[in-house]
Amino acid sequence: MIEEKGILFILSGPSGVGKGTVRKALFERDPDLKYSISMTTREKRPGETDGIDYFYKTQEEFQELIKNNQLLEYAQYVNNYYGTPRAYVEETLEAGKDVFLEIEVQGALQVKENFPEGVFIFLFPPSLEELKNRIINRGTESSELVLNRLKEARKEIELMDAYDYVVVNDNVDHAVEKVQAIIQSEHLKRERIAKQYKKLLEAEL
Amino acid sequence: MIEEKGILFILSGPSGVGKGTVRKALFERDPDLKYSISMTTREKRPGETDGIDYFYKTQEEFQELIKNNQLLEYAQYVNNYYGTPRAYVEETLEAGKDVFLEIEVQGALQVKENFPEGVFIFLFPPSLEELKNRIINRGTESSELVLNRLKEARKEIELMDAYDYVVVNDNVDHAVEKVQAIIQSEHLKRERIAKQYKKLLEAEL
Repeated sequence: MIEEKGILFILSGPSGVGKGTVRKALFERDPDLKYSISMTTREKRPGETDGIDYFYKTQEEFQELIKNNQLLEYAQYVNNYYGTPRAYVEETLEAGKDVFLEIEVQGALQVKENFPEGVFIFLFPPSLEELKNRIINRGTESSELVLNRLKEARKEIELMDAYDYVVVNDNVDHAVEKVQAIIQSEHLKRERIAKQYKKLLEAEL
Repeated sequence: MIEEKGILFILSGPSGVGKGTVRKALFERDPDLKYSISMTTREKRPGETDGIDYFYKTQEEFQELIKNNQLLEYAQYVNNYYGTPRAYVEETLEAGKDVFLEIEVQGALQVKENFPEGVFIFLFPPSLEELKNRIINRGTESSELVLNRLKEARKEIELMDAYDYVVVNDNVDHAVEKVQAIIQSEHLKRERIAKQYKKLLEAEL
């Protein structure tokens, strides 16, 4: 069969949309996926393991990694750094395993810049779906409220433009099923596999 | 729900690869798909219905359609024309239904030229050996003809680069499942959905 590199999938979306829930349900169904392990400067807590919960680094080590562009994205919260190590992701992909990264929108945009070959999935809140229905039905709301909501929606849509896919999280099972279809079909893309098929064919002749 | 246009899916691949079998199994599982109805100049046979089995046209009508670029592809066999009418495909897509076209490689390349926004799926034989067996097992071909068809198949596989996806037909169920994943994920593509959201918003502002 075909020996293929893994693919980096990034699941993102506005806070509160349910990224964690969808990711968790996805991992229960697809044990072959590797969850991207973050790097942090915060202290290891009891029960945590280096290389499983996080990769633990000192402030100096972390800043060195930033300097050398060794992080796909990073952010600082309460004096501690958190980030996604490029090396772990690349080694896992080289080993033929998909890596799955669940992350806030700002982080995803950083990843997009540092790793554009990733597949970016935007998880969309069902509330916009409702809003959209109201718009379609030429709603009963005041036009002022509709306008405000549309402005909000517009901001979200601008962020959406960096993504490859949009999945509405109206229901966790539906959302997971859709993400699984994306993962499967991305592996069928001709540009990823055509070279290998042609090689296979030449070997036969 | 979002009111989305349908998508034209083109399933193609070398002769003997099993396009017809995969298409048939797919249609049994997905009754929402519309099969593209061909147009022909050959005589209607007993039991056939215009607009179901084919659209029946005279030679003059067909040539007029060719002249006016009203066919996504066409070919001539034994003095009769066969082709895919653009109008039927476009009307079905406008009505929000996906159209599925199963076709030879040469026809698919014509469709690609006339309708590049289609999603092109290449059905790949599990091996050339297997393809050869399948062609032989049809039993309708002399060994010389089998060799010719194999040569043709190799050439057709070289044309894979015009396609979006490659699906190995090692097993009908697997192949159908993969095509279904492609259909589902293509509907989740941001570039298709974001446009719809924007249209909806612009209509209100």
